Amino acid sequence: MTYPFLKGHGTENDFVLLPDHDGSVHGDLDPARVRALCDRRAGIGGDGVLRVIRTAAMGDAGRGQDAEWFMDYRNSDGSVSEMCGNGIRVFARHLVDEGLVDGSAPIPVATRDGIKVLRVEGDLVTADMGRPKVLGETAVSVGEARWPARHVDMGNPHAVAFVDSLDAHGPVGPLLDEPSYDASTYPEGVNVEFVVRAGERHVAMRVHERGSGETRSCGTGACAVMVASALADGVSGPPAEDLTYRVDVPGGTLRITWTADDRVLLTGPAVVVASGTTAL
Amino acid sequence: MTYPFLKGHGTENDFVLLPDHDGSVHGDLDPARVRALCDRRAGIGGDGVLRVIRTAAMGDAGRGQDAEWFMDYRNSDGSVSEMCGNGIRVFARHLVDEGLVDGSAPIPVATRDGIKVLRVEGDLVTADMGRPKVLGETAVSVGEARWPARHVDMGNPHAVAFVDSLDAHGPVGPLLDEPSYDASTYPEGVNVEFVVRAGERHVAMRVHERGSGETRSCGTGACAVMVASALADGVSGPPAEDLTYRVDVPGGTLRITWTADDRVLLTGPAVVVASGTTAL
Repeated sequence: MTYPFLKGHGTENDFVLLPDHDGSVHGDLDPARVRALCDRRAGIGGDGVLRVIRTAAMGDAGRGQDAEWFMDYRNSDGSVSEMCGNGIRVFARHLVDEGLVDGSAPIPVATRDGIKVLRVEGDLVTADMGRPKVLGETAVSVGEARWPARHVDMGNPHAVAFVDSLDAHGPVGPLLDEPSYDASTYPEGVNVEFVVRAGERHVAMRVHERGSGETRSCGTGACAVMVASALADGVSGPPAEDLTYRVDVPGGTLRITWTADDRVLLTGPAVVVASGTTAL
Repeated sequence: MTYPFLKGHGTENDFVLLPDHDGSVHGDLDPARVRALCDRRAGIGGDGVLRVIRTAAMGDAGRGQDAEWFMDYRNSDGSVSEMCGNGIRVFARHLVDEGLVDGSAPIPVATRDGIKVLRVEGDLVTADMGRPKVLGETAVSVGEARWPARHVDMGNPHAVAFVDSLDAHGPVGPLLDEPSYDASTYPEGVNVEFVVRAGERHVAMRVHERGSGETRSCGTGACAVMVASALADGVSGPPAEDLTYRVDVPGGTLRITWTADDRVLLTGPAVVVASGTTAL
């Protein structure tokens, strides 16, 4: 069976998009197919798969969500994930590219974490990532090195650790393996961010995503990092007025705004670079 | 400008193929475009690019070569390379898939290293890689670890080192950096293979390719490894009768035959997995 695909990325967090508007192409979308598509050598390659499907075709997952399109997101290991901040920005770019939505207005997209609203402005796409949940302190470790970390939930769980250096030859290392974390705090795993200060309201990070390994960028991770950084800078909760940080990821630059009404906005580039067909 | 591409691999040594039969699509093929195509996150991803072009359209590089098709090979860093053993097997698969050659007969393909002859038999594609040049002893090192190595030339230079373990946590390590080598022996750089014994006429290897970093497979590297292994097993030169070794690479299994007339045949799977268009 041959079927269409596209490939795109947001700050080098990259995805295989699978147009399947009525769900008839991929059915339940076999995890083995997702793994084959995301394989960087034997397949097309990506940090995850974005199935482009109408909400009405998603059954229970889409019920009650007032948005025409649903982002059916899968991690590269084939597992289901609720949301992906860079993925949904690429998803919105694709909808606009294909004329499936009106790009001049806010774009609602249904997900397993509910409706998200996107705005496309030139090269930049902004995703409203909703309310952050600031939780307690925890710790993560890589080999012999151990750091305290902030537990932030952005719809998915994060552990944010401030470190002295992000160098692959330093204590964080090449991140070949998953960092160790407190399994009682994170029974379903965790995305781990390592952060250094780069200036005022400016940080740099690396991330290890559960199910995907180290990636060039993680949208919810960048949001969690911004919130943890603002807290470390003395902000005690939702700021009195919108507060924006620059977050450098290995694949580019994101800008994160924590709004006075306690929402987190993720802004950055998103682009589709290729399209075609495959039988993977 | 939008143009066609395909993606394929041989034992997970993967390539972006660029059909450009008369050379009018890509002209001199800008190295920046090659890098953009091979970028695994921002592009399509590959260890190299195979331009599919008629020999007559290649000018001086093709002159005097009696083959319709020329494999214009580029490393992922944009540099030109003479030959690529897995690449040319994928190239032959593509020619047969598209009906550009008769797959039931030997297929001559022109390269910057002269004409190579390919045979396609079911899932397997064999490339005649020509005569090995067995040269002297040298040494390579990774960090503090240092090994003696055999210098074998397969049209491109190799240093083959026998090690105790290929484990990424062992002395060979994750191969983040290029191994150190004797620059007077290899003034234009070298492909470095690390080898362990796996059985009789059976070895396993990892490879660091100049211009590409560690890859899942390297065809000329597997040939050099086979020749070095046969020499280490007491063969003193071209064998009295055809001699075949199994060489396991991270991306699969290759079979290498050193023939009695002193040629090296590289056999393994080769497949095209996707096709489409891009504006990269």
